[in-house]
Amino acid sequence: MKNNFQIPIVLLVNGEFPSHPAPMEILKSAKTIICTDGSANSLIQFGIEPQVIIGDLDSLKIDKNLFTGTLIHEPNQNNTDFEKALVWALENYVSDLNILGSTGLREDHSLANYFIFSEYSSKMNLKLVTNHFTITCHDGTRTFESKRGHIVSIFAIFPQTVVSTQFLKYPLLNSVLNPSCRTISNKSLASQFQVESNKPILVFHSHDIF
Amino acid sequence: MKNNFQIPIVLLVNGEFPSHPAPMEILKSAKTIICTDGSANSLIQFGIEPQVIIGDLDSLKIDKNLFTGTLIHEPNQNNTDFEKALVWALENYVSDLNILGSTGLREDHSLANYFIFSEYSSKMNLKLVTNHFTITCHDGTRTFESKRGHIVSIFAIFPQTVVSTQFLKYPLLNSVLNPSCRTISNKSLASQFQVESNKPILVFHSHDIF
Repeated sequence: MKNNFQIPIVLLVNGEFPSHPAPMEILKSAKTIICTDGSANSLIQFGIEPQVIIGDLDSLKIDKNLFTGTLIHEPNQNNTDFEKALVWALENYVSDLNILGSTGLREDHSLANYFIFSEYSSKMNLKLVTNHFTITCHDGTRTFESKRGHIVSIFAIFPQTVVSTQFLKYPLLNSVLNPSCRTISNKSLASQFQVESNKPILVFHSHDIF
Repeated sequence: MKNNFQIPIVLLVNGEFPSHPAPMEILKSAKTIICTDGSANSLIQFGIEPQVIIGDLDSLKIDKNLFTGTLIHEPNQNNTDFEKALVWALENYVSDLNILGSTGLREDHSLANYFIFSEYSSKMNLKLVTNHFTITCHDGTRTFESKRGHIVSIFAIFPQTVVSTQFLKYPLLNSVLNPSCRTISNKSLASQFQVESNKPILVFHSHDIF
């Protein structure tokens, strides 16, 4: 099924507004921007009007009568605005979505967002792009385009996750990871690296070289 | 056993430097400040000299010969600077520690810090104080001093954690929580609230009223 939204599509969440060139470039080149509630205020203040705003719309400071995009009032208190937007995107056959503003500010939201993100990553092609990292969630084998010196941090979501890597400074070979494992600050050795896992894992891949 | 450090003792980690009055008050009233490596640069720039600096000391920009406090060189690559500081604090019989700067900036560090924090919370009386929340980790029953309208978000660390609450807007009664549960944005109804759990849980308690 198809929708009428022009691609690329970006979802802006109400955490820290992007400032690094990587998420900023994604924001500026988006053809469709979906905002969760309060994040629309930040985007409009930045000078860009979103195409879609979704949430309980309580924190929206714009004049709703003047807004020419799509306003989706979703008052369900059990879901966060981030999850409401992902549900709506799925229902509207969005297949690829870069998500900005998912971290920073309220730490409880940032932490919950990783779990929401990992659940929906099995249904859509999603990326969290923050001011430091591009974060993806996958199982099986995935190859990442990279530069030598990029930081790569890996988090298991489920206990007893078996992970192997290629072209990283500290290689993993069928290593059993639990969520509490601190497999952070590994480094890419080449223009690509690879991560293989038997269960979904979060891969944090830095924008910059360290 | 005792140590010679004056209390209260604060650990400053190299995330976002405090700006909210709650962590700022804790920073200013500390009698002993322990810094992990790079956080000492931020603290000294802010006009306060730490008593202890611990880490691999690679990112330290001060003149080490002029520093009158205790420098602890700990090059172990397997531990993050945060964990090195907690190990050192334990070895030095520190029993109460408020931790600032644990979130913000690098999201992989922020995420790993919750797991490190939860492990060491069974050994010492620890609090993470961010610009939004005081975060604690406990099992059993704990009562929190509060104001009506404070946000309370709860995260299970282990699967199948049984949690009950009192004096929260959306009460839990023997609710089974998994790490992926989004039990966020609950609200305190009174000057105290209580959280009971059969396994360690993270409780995020906001500084402000919403």
